[in-house]
Order: sequence, then structure tokens, then C-alpha cells
Amino acid sequence: MSTSSREIQLAARPHGEPKPSDFRLVAVELPDPGDGELLVRNTYMSVDPYMRGRMNDVKSYTPPFKLDEVMDGGAVGEVVLSNAEGFAVGDVVLHQLGWREHAVQPAAHVRKVVAGDLPESAFLGVLGMPGLTAYAGLLDVAGMQDGDIVFVSGAAGAVGSLAGQIAKLRGNTVIGSAGSDEKVRHLVDDLGFDEAFNYKAGPVGRQLAAAAPKGIDVYFDNVGGDHLEAAIGVANRNGRFALCGAISGYNHTAPAPGPRNMMQIVGKRLTLRGFIVTDHFGRLADLHAEIGPAVRAGQIAFRETVADGLPNAPQAFVDLLRGANVGKMVVKL
Amino acid sequence: MSTSSREIQLAARPHGEPKPSDFRLVAVELPDPGDGELLVRNTYMSVDPYMRGRMNDVKSYTPPFKLDEVMDGGAVGEVVLSNAEGFAVGDVVLHQLGWREHAVQPAAHVRKVVAGDLPESAFLGVLGMPGLTAYAGLLDVAGMQDGDIVFVSGAAGAVGSLAGQIAKLRGNTVIGSAGSDEKVRHLVDDLGFDEAFNYKAGPVGRQLAAAAPKGIDVYFDNVGGDHLEAAIGVANRNGRFALCGAISGYNHTAPAPGPRNMMQIVGKRLTLRGFIVTDHFGRLADLHAEIGPAVRAGQIAFRETVADGLPNAPQAFVDLLRGANVGKMVVKL
Repeated sequence: MSTSSREIQLAARPHGEPKPSDFRLVAVELPDPGDGELLVRNTYMSVDPYMRGRMNDVKSYTPPFKLDEVMDGGAVGEVVLSNAEGFAVGDVVLHQLGWREHAVQPAAHVRKVVAGDLPESAFLGVLGMPGLTAYAGLLDVAGMQDGDIVFVSGAAGAVGSLAGQIAKLRGNTVIGSAGSDEKVRHLVDDLGFDEAFNYKAGPVGRQLAAAAPKGIDVYFDNVGGDHLEAAIGVANRNGRFALCGAISGYNHTAPAPGPRNMMQIVGKRLTLRGFIVTDHFGRLADLHAEIGPAVRAGQIAFRETVADGLPNAPQAFVDLLRGANVGKMVVKL
Repeated sequence: MSTSSREIQLAARPHGEPKPSDFRLVAVELPDPGDGELLVRNTYMSVDPYMRGRMNDVKSYTPPFKLDEVMDGGAVGEVVLSNAEGFAVGDVVLHQLGWREHAVQPAAHVRKVVAGDLPESAFLGVLGMPGLTAYAGLLDVAGMQDGDIVFVSGAAGAVGSLAGQIAKLRGNTVIGSAGSDEKVRHLVDDLGFDEAFNYKAGPVGRQLAAAAPKGIDVYFDNVGGDHLEAAIGVANRNGRFALCGAISGYNHTAPAPGPRNMMQIVGKRLTLRGFIVTDHFGRLADLHAEIGPAVRAGQIAFRETVADGLPNAPQAFVDLLRGANVGKMVVKL
């Protein structure tokens, strides 16, 4: 017996923004799970900005996708066949074989989760990688302390919206930037940000200075580029920056110049620290312990933009890179 | 009674590189020291790159020099009149009233030093601010550990030559850059650097990659600009950068763009931290305890470029900004 499935393969390496022809939807037959393996039917898959880097053939912190092979990434699904001890049909599992409808894999590669009254997709968002990125970035990388003024760029995105809310939950002042007036209203009205601005409506430096008259102590950077320069410009002495990504540059074909005010890093004694969430998995239990209850109590809002069906996953990914999502972008399979 | 002295005043704020007409040599009469004050005859004064920033009328970590007033900076001198308890004629003191031949000041503003068999100028160099900058930058800011490969830019300068030697004293591998073939030979032959290159002889990125085939773990940055970009490019995972200054940009009239490879800070989990030596005075005793004996034993070489006489101090300062010095640039008064 085998299982019919479909998967998305990388058909071509994009130059700049990915096009539909860079992806290929392929029907495949999966073998039955072997000893210690599971057959999982994916219910949701994640599309994330870091995947754009994996479409290039360059060494990075995660290996590049291979041409003419299935792509991968975070996914949640239900066990439909189990050959592994401790796993039963119907179990909900989190794993890394997204971009496909079904997956056969060793049970050692998946993690069982209990969704309870939360949708399964929460484990791709607030209680998964984006939530952990926000949590570890603020607390461990930037060392956020009581009283810090926190600036979050790309604050309507999956990670940014959680970073801002976690900082608010801890009682900090939070300023956010986003790419539309609607998103800005969402940050202030729904997520409780103290200040927010539309970075497409004017120079980031001027808007941030107006939103942060007392400067900033912590910067959670999802954007890079002019946002990073603006944050250096308004940072207070001993400011700490957690550099999480630089979506502004992901589709660039030539490297963009860095901030023109790097010299201020010295005079202001700033610390800029890059990080990758995979180094911080040890904090997942703390995330669930501290943030889980707040999510269930409705103190942390998590919005999702949900695309429908595997064939729409490539477009969902392109939309994500264009900033069309509010909150976590996922694909329902 | 009064004391005749001479001092250098700021005559004009330079645009770009300072010119002789930006300085003015003035004869002055000093009052006798009051209660608790000393009259000090300066024997050496320091010229340092950070002084270029103080010639501009911009807020920074040290206040700007005032137009038509005497400049100041590190100096060492001998007490010639004491109205303060605990200070006798002939005592050697370190203080901040440089750019003048004599100074009257409260004893509370000076620190007595015992030169022993070292020249007094050592307290403007290896056992003073430059030494402390190197020591605290490596150990406290960059967190240098055993086995780290250390890159020092501007390595023939006052701070750089000490940073490299302290790293070697601790058993690390050290790579340096300098601005002439002569300086490069000095780094390798006299100071024990493992590798060194002339940054004017070719692209910094290519030269650094060749000198550091195993990458770098620590970067002590005195230069900024293309050096910083090159260091990001070859840095190993979890690399730590102590940003001490950016002499490459001090005379710029327009801000230069930053590194084009800032995105690598994320993937490589780099930490870039700016610092100012004045935050690290608490480490002066450790510097003297660890490095003092090494200096006396001849394990740490400190070269000086000595200009002669106060009238030559402005030219010594301009020469320093052009990189004409080897080791610490001082002016003998």
C-alpha cells in the first residue's frame, strides 16, 4: 500500500522576487512508514521569510533548498499511521516536513503537542517558532529589562506582533512600525502598542524620532536597512538590539549598504546581536509556561492570514514577502 | 607671582582634515594654585583620534572643544608647586589638562603615578588610556576566550598594537592590519602578530580572508568602514566585535554607508558592541597588575612616536589622523 500526496518542489532559483514558475506542484506516492516511523497528514504548513534565503544556492544557517526537490519547513499534522511507540492515530504533531500534504518520517523528528482549545496552527505561531523567536530575542538576546522602551519593526508580522505583545505583557513601553495604515491601527487598537507608524508614509528616521521622544533602549529588528539606521539614531546609551532578520533585503539582488551612522554604536555603547531561533529551543518550555496562559486568557492576540490548499502555498509565500499578511501567514492543507 | 605658560586654543572648527589655521598657540599667565590645588609642569601630552570628534560642535560622549579656548586631553607632568596635602614637588601625575605647558588644577583631578624604570609617557600609552582600551575591549567587551582567533585593525596604532600584544600574551592567534608595509613588518617582526597585511595594498576583504583561513572569532575594530565589512564577512559563528572607533570616518564630512553585509550578523549570530574606555576605569588596577609586569619584562613592546614641543602638537595630531605614527603618538613638552 502507498499514499498519494502532493508536494511543492523548487523548480528554479529566483532572481529577486520569486515567480510562480520558480515552484512546481507535483503528485507523488509515499511508501508506508517503516519501523519507528509515522505517516502524518499535514493540516497546516508555515511560510516564513527565512525561506527566501534558502531558495538561493548560498551557504547560510540553514541549507539551501535543492532544485527539483521538495521544499520543507514547519508544519503541524495528524498521525494517520503509526509504527512508532508512544504515537497513536489522531495525535497532533509538529515537524519540519511542510510544503507537502503527507509526510513519512521517523517519530524522533516530530514533537507531540496538545492544542486543547487553541487551533493547531497556534503551534506554527504564538507557541511555535515565531513565538519563541520573539520571546528569546527580547529576553535573552536583547536582555529586556523593566522600564525599557522597546521598538519593534515589522510589528504586524508573525514575530513582530508577538514581540510587541510580550514586551507589553511585561509592562514595557512599545513602539511599532508596519507597512500600512490598517496595520498601524491594528497594532495600537488590538495589540496595545503605545505608538506605531506606517514606514511607507515617510522617512523612518523622522517617524521613529517622533514616536520615541525619550529614545529607545531595546530594538527588535525584523527589517534591517533604514529601520536599523533609524534605531541607531534614536537609541539611548547602552541600547541593545536583537537582530532577527532583514526582510527589507531578502529579495535584493545586490547587497544594500548598511547604516550610515555605525559610528554612533561606539559613542552610545550599543550592542547589536544577531540570533537564530534554533539556538534557543531550550526556552520553549518557558515560552509555553509564561505565554501559554496569556494566550488562553486572551491577553495575547494572535492573528493569522490563512491561505487555502497546497497549490496556493507559493503565492502565500510571495504575499508574505510583500507584506500582505497580518500576523502569522499559514497555509491550511 | 604668576607662571608664564603657553597653550593651544581651537581657532576654528575644521571641515574635513584639520589645518594649521584651526589651532592657535597663545602665551598666558597662570595664577598661583589655590587651596588644594597644584601647579603642574607637563612633560608629555597625548594626541588621540577621539579629539577629532571634539573639534566638531556636536554632542557626543565627550563635550566639544570650545572655540577660542584651550583644548584639553591626557597629559603627564611634574608637580612644581603644591598647595594640596599628599602631593610634593617632583611628584609625577596623570591628568586631563593637556595641550598646554603648565596647568593649575585641584589635586582631586590628578592621579599620582610611579613610573619606576618606565618613561613617564608610558602612562599615556601602555599603562594609560590606550592600554586600558585594549584590555577592557578584548576581555570585557569582546569576551575573548582561549583559542579565539583575534583580528585587530589599525594594529600599529596606540590601542591596536596593545590589543594585539595582549591577545598574544594570552596565547591567542592574532591578525593585524596596518597602513604601510613598514608597519606590517613591525607587527610581525617586533610585536609577534601571526599574520598582518597592508590595507592600502588591496581590498581589505580579500586580504583578510587570505590572512584568516580559519575565520575570526574576535574583532577589535579601530577603523570601521571596509574593515568592519570584511570582518563580518570572515567572522565565525558567535563572533564578537568590540567597536572602539572608526578612524576611517573621522574626517568625513558626509556619513559613509555601513557594511553591505549586515544580514550576516543574523545568520552568524554575531555580537557587535561599541564601548568607551571611560566606562572601564574600574579595570585600571587589573591592567597594571597583569600587563605592568609584562611591560617591565619586555614582553610587551610599546613604541612611541614623539613630537617635540607644544608648537608642534597640532601637526602631530594631523599626522596621527593620517596614520603617520607607529605606536602611541605623544608630544614632549
